[in-house]
Amino acid sequence: MKSMAEIKREVGDGKAVSACSGGVDSTVASCLAQKAIGDRLTVIYVDDGMRREGEPEAVVSMLRGFGMRVRILDAGDEFFKSLKGKIDAEEKRLAFRHTFYSVLGNEVKRVGADYLIQGTIAADVVETAGGVKTQHNVLEQIGVDTRQFGFKLLEPLKDLYKPQVRAVARELGLPEDVSEKMPFPGPGLCIRVLGEVTPERVEILRKATKIIEEETSMLPAFQRFAVLHSDRATGVRDGKRSYGYIITLRLVESEDAMTARAVEVPYYLLKRISKRVFDEIPEVSRCLYDITDKPPATIEFE
Amino acid sequence: MKSMAEIKREVGDGKAVSACSGGVDSTVASCLAQKAIGDRLTVIYVDDGMRREGEPEAVVSMLRGFGMRVRILDAGDEFFKSLKGKIDAEEKRLAFRHTFYSVLGNEVKRVGADYLIQGTIAADVVETAGGVKTQHNVLEQIGVDTRQFGFKLLEPLKDLYKPQVRAVARELGLPEDVSEKMPFPGPGLCIRVLGEVTPERVEILRKATKIIEEETSMLPAFQRFAVLHSDRATGVRDGKRSYGYIITLRLVESEDAMTARAVEVPYYLLKRISKRVFDEIPEVSRCLYDITDKPPATIEFE
Repeated sequence: MKSMAEIKREVGDGKAVSACSGGVDSTVASCLAQKAIGDRLTVIYVDDGMRREGEPEAVVSMLRGFGMRVRILDAGDEFFKSLKGKIDAEEKRLAFRHTFYSVLGNEVKRVGADYLIQGTIAADVVETAGGVKTQHNVLEQIGVDTRQFGFKLLEPLKDLYKPQVRAVARELGLPEDVSEKMPFPGPGLCIRVLGEVTPERVEILRKATKIIEEETSMLPAFQRFAVLHSDRATGVRDGKRSYGYIITLRLVESEDAMTARAVEVPYYLLKRISKRVFDEIPEVSRCLYDITDKPPATIEFE
Repeated sequence: MKSMAEIKREVGDGKAVSACSGGVDSTVASCLAQKAIGDRLTVIYVDDGMRREGEPEAVVSMLRGFGMRVRILDAGDEFFKSLKGKIDAEEKRLAFRHTFYSVLGNEVKRVGADYLIQGTIAADVVETAGGVKTQHNVLEQIGVDTRQFGFKLLEPLKDLYKPQVRAVARELGLPEDVSEKMPFPGPGLCIRVLGEVTPERVEILRKATKIIEEETSMLPAFQRFAVLHSDRATGVRDGKRSYGYIITLRLVESEDAMTARAVEVPYYLLKRISKRVFDEIPEVSRCLYDITDKPPATIEFE
């Protein structure tokens, strides 16, 4: 495969690090790198505190099952510190990205590698260049020189769209859990917490995310997730006024994330999901359901 | 009727003013007062800038059709000024209420009246006393002395619940437009604009409200309305990132507003409503649908 040859040629006898979130893009990129340079690859899993329940453990154990050498960086505190007080969506993305590459840059140095391999795909580059949003993993295209973080970047998938990446995953013999995996944003739950990102608010969203993933698993969807609003709304708990959190449920169908349709969720299921949310997360007193396609909305809120 | 006799006895040979929004409560209270004291009643319609499209004209012409002497107070600027910079729900309610009674107090003085008649009903008093929210027309129960505004208060309906008020309306021979009228909050669109209330944001909500009222008119509902969030979300317009407004659709069934069920809106209709919203209000890029009963939510968001 062409990208493997490129990795071999670039890295030569040196070492490389790949950042892997467990998503299909970064897992495919890491597999290609492993096949290209074998043990001279270190796979890094950055636990940024923004992952879904049980996700870090599950991903790391899967990657180790593929024979990869994986290091986990427990960096939640650094991410929360960099996000403190920030409420603007783009500022949050920038803060996340800066912390991500600083943390990673330190690790690249520690390992003694020159290269960072990551799973940027074509849609990330197109959307960033087109001004739709700044994908957190798109650096050179927006004029960020990665040498400030101490490494050169290799992006073996940057000419492929999502369906092609899934095809490569199948070709590499990766399990369906990977090849058909639902996309999850690079900055994780962080961009689904509107307004300030605090550990408490991420924890509320993490619980709601789990409920929505469990309760809608029988519905086909490209992505299914919860969003926590910064707006709050009045509610009634035990006969008293409360000022509760608002959660939005979002399910979309899509081929390549460039356009998307809101999934029709049966009303009985919406009611069942919201009941579980109110029972299990007392801070939440209102559930909304997003009925918007892309365009005019994006899939995510930020 | 008992309340008419009370109004007669209290007001005596003096004058009274009634504040009428055109809702069933204040229209019934004004009708009772008119029957009790005839021409010594002046009905005031406060145009606070927070009404629905065409509402002030329609209400005033209806009240005049009932033979009432109606004065319109064009006070939008004063309300917007008092709300400027306020984002907390309770602060907004307090600012609205203070402006409302100041404006009205001036008018009571101008007319030379001693009494203000208003359509407070039992649910308003119960919810305010119970701490669910501060109804804007409940004053004495929360320790506000109306003499600061220059009048004494008469509340002929304060022992009745909504279904009883509707029965009185029918008994008085008021048309169905009044007796079966959908409730509308005292502070109007103001409490459906989350965050700061500006003329521009109220205008966006006014357009969305009209669309929802028109498109859902065939569905039975106790209330049907739109909410404008202060949170915004990313969207795509003409291939470029936009940061658009979020509108929530809310329809509820209820008997007395003390409890309520979210109305199931067919999916095709949700899509049709949202399409009209995006076509007619380019500032909006996302539509949500509220699926929450009361409790745990309240009917309104603030």
